[in-house]
Amino acid sequence: MLTLFHHPLCPHSRFVRLALAEYKREVRLIEERTWERRQDFLAMNPAGTTPVLLDKGLLPVPGAAIAAEYLDEIRGAKQDDAGLLPRDPSSRVEVRRLMSWFNDKFFAEVSGPLVTERFFKRHKGVGADGSAPDTEVIRAARHNIRHHLAYVGWLARKRDWLAGNQLSYADLSAAAHLSAADYLGDVPWNEDETAKDWYARVKSRPSFRSILAETVAGIRPSPTYADLDF
Amino acid sequence: MLTLFHHPLCPHSRFVRLALAEYKREVRLIEERTWERRQDFLAMNPAGTTPVLLDKGLLPVPGAAIAAEYLDEIRGAKQDDAGLLPRDPSSRVEVRRLMSWFNDKFFAEVSGPLVTERFFKRHKGVGADGSAPDTEVIRAARHNIRHHLAYVGWLARKRDWLAGNQLSYADLSAAAHLSAADYLGDVPWNEDETAKDWYARVKSRPSFRSILAETVAGIRPSPTYADLDF
Repeated sequence: MLTLFHHPLCPHSRFVRLALAEYKREVRLIEERTWERRQDFLAMNPAGTTPVLLDKGLLPVPGAAIAAEYLDEIRGAKQDDAGLLPRDPSSRVEVRRLMSWFNDKFFAEVSGPLVTERFFKRHKGVGADGSAPDTEVIRAARHNIRHHLAYVGWLARKRDWLAGNQLSYADLSAAAHLSAADYLGDVPWNEDETAKDWYARVKSRPSFRSILAETVAGIRPSPTYADLDF
Repeated sequence: MLTLFHHPLCPHSRFVRLALAEYKREVRLIEERTWERRQDFLAMNPAGTTPVLLDKGLLPVPGAAIAAEYLDEIRGAKQDDAGLLPRDPSSRVEVRRLMSWFNDKFFAEVSGPLVTERFFKRHKGVGADGSAPDTEVIRAARHNIRHHLAYVGWLARKRDWLAGNQLSYADLSAAAHLSAADYLGDVPWNEDETAKDWYARVKSRPSFRSILAETVAGIRPSPTYADLDF
């Protein structure tokens, strides 16, 4: 069985959990408190970040994008139709482009700052320098999310799913990062009905259930967070 | 023929150029001034960043990591031994881990800030807010690079190349990002002899030649930048 070192509010961990659930792979979850900088964890991932995926006999797989590539590669040939990373070159480029958009750009501009300032600093007292939440950073992230939400809506108006005509890693990464912001009540869903409809579809999938059912100590989810009809 | 939209001091562009040269793929280079936010370029890559690789009949391939995956996938089976991304799962994880270490972490902590503050802001006047170079940011990057250089040395003491016993994307990404900092004279090579020896080996490869021969307007390379015996 696979093991995933994760944190419930870490958007990258959420992405890998969604991918594992879509592939129907069982996984043992271990909550990692990265701020404690546990030596055994740093030995697995010197970058000190979640998630880290462990598979028997293999080096630890660190990070969302690397886990995504790994899960695609071990899927084997018979599940071709269910692939979250399609087979043709242009589709692969588009899925990877959007996966990076959300895992890297959205994380840097929105989900990373929100989770760091509003959860880690406030509830764990673990700012890099022990500092208090920075309201300017939170304000900037709440401004940035509006552009990303509009982009999701634009993509969802053009296509069945974000990267094309089938569910892919693009949808899972977008939904994972948005869901972390949504837990904190920071997604202005009413600004884009198409984006909201797309998210309702992803959120209703069985792969999302265990994530929506979880709460983290110290901060309650927003009222509509787990509501499939939000 | 392939086309690459790049910038000479962009470390991600340097990485893709090195990969193309190692694979002996001819490429037409087009210098992109991302700060001008050219509409045709944004249509190719909405993130507005270099590099973007164009291959006939395919969607534009944006970003270093996505280009690396693409180039690996189109290599075909007969060149297995020359692969920059080895075939076995653990080696793939390690190459991708280190590629992300340099393309993401080193870029965020060192090469991105240095190139932005010391070149783009100073010589192009293109800070996000039109601001002057931030000496605190430069100081932090120069501090951070020492830890990364020590990590490169540690890896190079354990292995022939950074990710294992053959040259891989890990070496090219590390060398690409270090070379951008080296252009600016910001690599304290004397702090780690093994890291320096490893870089001398990568820098001496034919794939590095065209990069070392280039200078950018407004700022001269450091005295030992193009020196193979630095």
